[in-house]
Amino acid sequence: MIELYDLAAADDTVRMSPYCWRTRLALEHKQLPYRTVPWRFVDKDVIAFSGQGACPVITDGDKHVHDSWAIMEYLEAAYPERPKLFDSPQAKAEALFIKAWTEQVLHPGLTKQVILELYAMLDERDKPHFRTTREARFGMTLEAFAQDADEALPGLRKSMTPLRAALAQQKWLGGASPNYADYIVFGGFQWARTSSAKDVLEADDLIGEWRGRMLGLFNGLGAGVPARRAS
Amino acid sequence: MIELYDLAAADDTVRMSPYCWRTRLALEHKQLPYRTVPWRFVDKDVIAFSGQGACPVITDGDKHVHDSWAIMEYLEAAYPERPKLFDSPQAKAEALFIKAWTEQVLHPGLTKQVILELYAMLDERDKPHFRTTREARFGMTLEAFAQDADEALPGLRKSMTPLRAALAQQKWLGGASPNYADYIVFGGFQWARTSSAKDVLEADDLIGEWRGRMLGLFNGLGAGVPARRAS
Repeated sequence: MIELYDLAAADDTVRMSPYCWRTRLALEHKQLPYRTVPWRFVDKDVIAFSGQGACPVITDGDKHVHDSWAIMEYLEAAYPERPKLFDSPQAKAEALFIKAWTEQVLHPGLTKQVILELYAMLDERDKPHFRTTREARFGMTLEAFAQDADEALPGLRKSMTPLRAALAQQKWLGGASPNYADYIVFGGFQWARTSSAKDVLEADDLIGEWRGRMLGLFNGLGAGVPARRAS
Repeated sequence: MIELYDLAAADDTVRMSPYCWRTRLALEHKQLPYRTVPWRFVDKDVIAFSGQGACPVITDGDKHVHDSWAIMEYLEAAYPERPKLFDSPQAKAEALFIKAWTEQVLHPGLTKQVILELYAMLDERDKPHFRTTREARFGMTLEAFAQDADEALPGLRKSMTPLRAALAQQKWLGGASPNYADYIVFGGFQWARTSSAKDVLEADDLIGEWRGRMLGLFNGLGAGVPARRAS
């Protein structure tokens, strides 16, 4: 059975990595049996076989693949008879734009909103690593970085305009049914939902309707991980 | 033969509308014979048959279609044996995201950079309409709106990050060959190139390489319209 090494919080049942969510939904979409292995940043040795130190990593028999996009490509190639994550080469190519937008616009904006609550829920062993790497990236403490989160929220919501406009035209980014482009973007929202009690969307934002549909997919897999509650 | 009503500057040979460029490249891609009819904003009566007042409009025998996306859909449906603008339903669906990004992020950013030079090259009859409608939209004069163009340029370039990242992975947004998603985004760059002597890209930006490839398509159709020169 395929095993997915899946970033977990201190609470084993909380899985928040946006990249691991992409892979999990891809496995569900392809109707492949799998199990997840909770993993923490400090468990580098556990995935050393993959030749690098980040999740998602999957093992499939004697094969292993890391990086969510590479895993998607592996699953498509290894299981061509299963439902496809993209219905054509151009659909896959265009998704690289949506992926880039997600990682370079959406994720950075979300990071500021959720990072303090995310930090608080990490396994104690993960906290030093997380703080050190993120503070080096931001050039400031987590607390300083998050300080203007409230002021930044309207800008984050505005930055979601392309997503909102696309979803005003159709039910899913993939059109009539969800595809891997939906899973890429949803990963960010699920990360925010599991990490922070703050809703990054306004109540009447139609992105919220899509997020609700995404949470319901695969027998409510996404919704099954509880949203963070205000502490 | 298909006729495309195509926004023109005072100089009949200068066609700058980003939406008309999408349609023109779509016609070329589908290898359909067509001719363009230079059109100005004041010529509302000329396209009154379309039931609205903006270009692109195409006529094809006794049929007419307006709105660049609707024209794309018409061409795909009417000429299914010709090369396809999208290779699948999902490719078309995902392009709505790229379209929204183009119209809500790229075009507004470009507008600030090019609007004064664009205004200067318009047909004299078009200038009052253009100034009035745009100044109402901006809530200020064209000159006031463009005043901080130089300060805004780094932000515009940064906003192109998703495009840059996608093109770092592949030659075209459509993957191995250009598709309608490329034409959507290129429309904005061609609009800027024909309207303004300022290059919105830095010299080493890989988006520029893609733009160069786009300009060369269809026997250099895009390159055939001269870039604006500093006056």
